[in-house]
Amino acid sequence: MSERILDDDARMRRFVDKFMAAVPHLAALGIGFVRSGPDWAELKLPYAAHLVAYPETGVIASGAIFSLMDSAAGFSVFTRMGRFEPHATLDLRCDYLRPAKAGETVFGRAECYKMTRKLAFVRGIAHDGDPEHPVAHITGTFMLTGQS
Amino acid sequence: MSERILDDDARMRRFVDKFMAAVPHLAALGIGFVRSGPDWAELKLPYAAHLVAYPETGVIASGAIFSLMDSAAGFSVFTRMGRFEPHATLDLRCDYLRPAKAGETVFGRAECYKMTRKLAFVRGIAHDGDPEHPVAHITGTFMLTGQS
Amino acid sequence: MSERILDDDARMRRFVDKFMAAVPHLAALGIGFVRSGPDWAELKLPYAAHLVAYPETGVIASGAIFSLMDSAAGFSVFTRMGRFEPHATLDLRCDYLRPAKAGETVFGRAECYKMTRKLAFVRGIAHDGDPEHPVAHITGTFMLTGQS
Amino acid sequence: MSERILDDDARMRRFVDKFMAAVPHLAALGIGFVRSGPDWAELKLPYAAHLVAYPETGVIASGAIFSLMDSAAGFSVFTRMGRFEPHATLDLRCDYLRPAKAGETVFGRAECYKMTRKLAFVRGIAHDGDPEHPVAHITGTFMLTGQS
Repeated sequence: MSERILDDDARMRRFVDKFMAAVPHLAALGIGFVRSGPDWAELKLPYAAHLVAYPETGVIASGAIFSLMDSAAGFSVFTRMGRFEPHATLDLRCDYLRPAKAGETVFGRAECYKMTRKLAFVRGIAHDGDPEHPVAHITGTFMLTGQS
Repeated sequence: MSERILDDDARMRRFVDKFMAAVPHLAALGIGFVRSGPDWAELKLPYAAHLVAYPETGVIASGAIFSLMDSAAGFSVFTRMGRFEPHATLDLRCDYLRPAKAGETVFGRAECYKMTRKLAFVRGIAHDGDPEHPVAHITGTFMLTGQS
Repeated sequence: MSERILDDDARMRRFVDKFMAAVPHLAALGIGFVRSGPDWAELKLPYAAHLVAYPETGVIASGAIFSLMDSAAGFSVFTRMGRFEPHATLDLRCDYLRPAKAGETVFGRAECYKMTRKLAFVRGIAHDGDPEHPVAHITGTFMLTGQS
Repeated sequence: MSERILDDDARMRRFVDKFMAAVPHLAALGIGFVRSGPDWAELKLPYAAHLVAYPETGVIASGAIFSLMDSAAGFSVFTRMGRFEPHATLDLRCDYLRPAKAGETVFGRAECYKMTRKLAFVRGIAHDGDPEHPVAHITGTFMLTGQS
């Protein structure tokens, strides 16, 4: 039901890659793992034609960025718990600061900044190369569904 | 730059279908038009394997529901303006009330309940058959980007 | 620990008035009870000099409207549960649509539209006379803290 | 209509204190200035009986903390603009992480992390002594109303 996250970075990455490949919607969007820490995770969304919302400009959909951040936030909860336990997005707010640059990979970094017995609080940013000039900012709560 | 929405429902539907087919991310997700009114729009997201987040249960990703609602909200802004004018999601909050049933189409209905010169305020629900038992609830703001 | 809400409207009002008078911050703001139903509650915030944020125009503070809506939302949770059980605001988003008219009472009506074992989901509007032209719109979640 | 914020800290504080005293709702709540930087501001809400929501425990109202954070966020917009220009809360989401300790001053620190011609994006935390263990987290947008 749950599995300890391994300390070894390389094994962690292999584990996470396998996990992400097993989630059809992440695979369909092309979301991949970048790095993680004790209470945060960074994922990436490489630019792809099927993500585009505005064909004239090539700008990708706000929904694709939301999915990236939702996933990064979920991973940050895993890192804080130190294991993979089921949890679900309870609510998420996404602020869009500017369009992502056409052609660029978007990175999503989220932090689980507080955790109670049943709830995890997250926040994070999406950027397209420079974290100082984010594309989006998110804040939300997750519910831990593993324990009754 | 903008085009009047036609009164005739059948022509409206053809117009909207063409519009949606031209947006790669909507086409990739399989989002389609259902119906609309003077300040609201209803779209649908047919169940599909590539939307799944939890392979064991077949439950689709919260991000896919967000994309549905983001699109429905954007369309509700079009209906209230009476024409297709560019606008962008400024911020959107999505509350997830329960998982959508595996195998079911999810419907997203959004209403543009207030509009100022520069901003549109939206709210809506997603459901999987019974609007009285929604799957998600959203609230957000869009920025009208067409006028300077 | 909890007390059943009485069916009799007049007794309900007396009970609620007593409850509200016992909460110093509600009393300090002047928030009062208007009416309630099976899953909703309406409170009021009479105009008062100490609520003003903009002395030149007499417009009241966004924070005062938030407090009104937070209280109305909390009451809507009581009505849905059918008794007074402790609960706490987990998160609340308030959208401000326009300034409230100087000199007018602001009414806040909130609905508890979904409840699980641990969480209550609420939404509502504030208006200054005409519910069709709201001043603010809220959406949020409450945590039921009474049961372990 | 607008006034440059002075570089001198002492004059800044005097100016801000005068500003805050002129806002009846801030004065009624007892909100005071602590310090500020190029794009952030910190305000305080000293513990007071009229802020209490739960008389048995002495815990203050979530609405009072919202007002503190709304004000701190508004000030952070002033600091980023470098002058006092009218602006209004467009939307604000407040996540409550735990009750503030009875008897303690609550501090609210907000940062204006992005500004466009018409909009300011803010985030911040409230704490009761230790910023590493916040009481609340906020995120929101303000509309600059001074320019047409």
